[in-house]
Amino acid sequence: MGATIGRSIQCGGHRTLWASQGRSRETRQRAEAEGFEEVTALVDLCAQSDVIVSVCPPHAAAQLAEQVAGTGYGGVYVDANAIPPALAGRIGELIVGAGGGYVDGSIIGPPARASGSTRVYLSGTGAASVAELFDAGAADAVVLDGFFTSASALKMVYAAYTKGSAALLLSVLGGARSLRVDEALRLEWAMSIPELPARSDRLLEYSGRKAWRFEGEMRFISETFESAGLPGGFHSAAAEIYRRLGGQADESFPVAHEQTLTDLLAGAEPAPFDPTR
Amino acid sequence: MGATIGRSIQCGGHRTLWASQGRSRETRQRAEAEGFEEVTALVDLCAQSDVIVSVCPPHAAAQLAEQVAGTGYGGVYVDANAIPPALAGRIGELIVGAGGGYVDGSIIGPPARASGSTRVYLSGTGAASVAELFDAGAADAVVLDGFFTSASALKMVYAAYTKGSAALLLSVLGGARSLRVDEALRLEWAMSIPELPARSDRLLEYSGRKAWRFEGEMRFISETFESAGLPGGFHSAAAEIYRRLGGQADESFPVAHEQTLTDLLAGAEPAPFDPTR
Repeated sequence: MGATIGRSIQCGGHRTLWASQGRSRETRQRAEAEGFEEVTALVDLCAQSDVIVSVCPPHAAAQLAEQVAGTGYGGVYVDANAIPPALAGRIGELIVGAGGGYVDGSIIGPPARASGSTRVYLSGTGAASVAELFDAGAADAVVLDGFFTSASALKMVYAAYTKGSAALLLSVLGGARSLRVDEALRLEWAMSIPELPARSDRLLEYSGRKAWRFEGEMRFISETFESAGLPGGFHSAAAEIYRRLGGQADESFPVAHEQTLTDLLAGAEPAPFDPTR
Repeated sequence: MGATIGRSIQCGGHRTLWASQGRSRETRQRAEAEGFEEVTALVDLCAQSDVIVSVCPPHAAAQLAEQVAGTGYGGVYVDANAIPPALAGRIGELIVGAGGGYVDGSIIGPPARASGSTRVYLSGTGAASVAELFDAGAADAVVLDGFFTSASALKMVYAAYTKGSAALLLSVLGGARSLRVDEALRLEWAMSIPELPARSDRLLEYSGRKAWRFEGEMRFISETFESAGLPGGFHSAAAEIYRRLGGQADESFPVAHEQTLTDLLAGAEPAPFDPTR
């Protein structure tokens, strides 16, 4: 995602830097393919940048912001990650306290290849100026009326349904297997909810790719819902589902259904009731 | 649902009784409209019946079975309610211990008006004989291979997704309102998940009708998933969502969106982070 967000900005004629220290060979390949300018250390990137856009796994967002604030960065910092509005607020305070400006952001959609697929939501003072950076690129910037952390809030509620309902369906598939009614469930779905068997297949085969990132995102969504006065249990359960699939990150995909079902049920206690009697 | 299940059996030429003691005027109207024979007390119904089919709110299933067992009922008892397989097993033991026969059942689909819409799943010894009772009616009986509580297990995993994902979407709508990004969420959905705005409208308007029954069903599903080695949090959260809407049972429908959102957020603690700053 970072590569296509960077390219969207670069399309407008802006210099686009990346800090290579400690990054993987794959990240280097993507950065070089897009023609981003390499600087080695984050402190040098901070010194040379007017705007920094943070796009990283959600659980790493706070640490990255601390590192940037620690350099005394005085430009605009856009946190575009899937984080709770409360955390976005704390990151904003940290950045502003260190002398910079903060714009809250979030990204909804796949890596942007053409306009219309992917929105970069922006909120708070300075959002309109950041939005202009995206005018020429494939990612569509949308400035939200509302509050300075509305972009993070929107991402939380959007992902709450998409990734939450995917985790729910995975859990149902695991439960049906454990209770030995999985074939009957598929036959019933084929009659009454015909889209679910194919959706189930895709989830069993591909959910493990990003599960290691989704676990933290689900925990953030659970926190966000509890702070909004709603139950956090949907997404703490979803975090557990993605945690169980986290080891699939390095698999080749599609993963066999049997393996995903085994991973979903790994560590499960035997049911106290014996259905074989 | 009980009325159309009874009618399905009656279509095969079987006498169909109902026990009127303590039941509502609406239940009487339905029973009389279907031409069921009235007996006053449950004990008389038990004495005159070869087969009893229990169709009631899930949280009432165990008590009804105890009452039937308490009469020394010696016929076949079919529990067709949305209950955990472990509870179905206990009810089966109770009925068999009192001298009757037990067949586990569950119903998936709307009240049956024509064949093809609604399945009565049956499992365990005697399931095939019970299935024959439905041969001439609108509800389609399906005998499950597997274990004697497979019919209850299938209902749990089926409803886990349908009613669970509905509760998840309601929670998302409440969260979006609380965080004041509900309009932005609808605009994003209109682009990326165009079926969700209309589905949301239906849920906001009609979910309260059966919420009082769904709360107990969600708690049963939560127990079932935990016993199967999977997280129970999706459905304990769903139970809380339906609990908050339980007071809508006597409303006229459709309910105004604003009222359902208010009910979803009733009792919510103010968020510790103030998004208005």
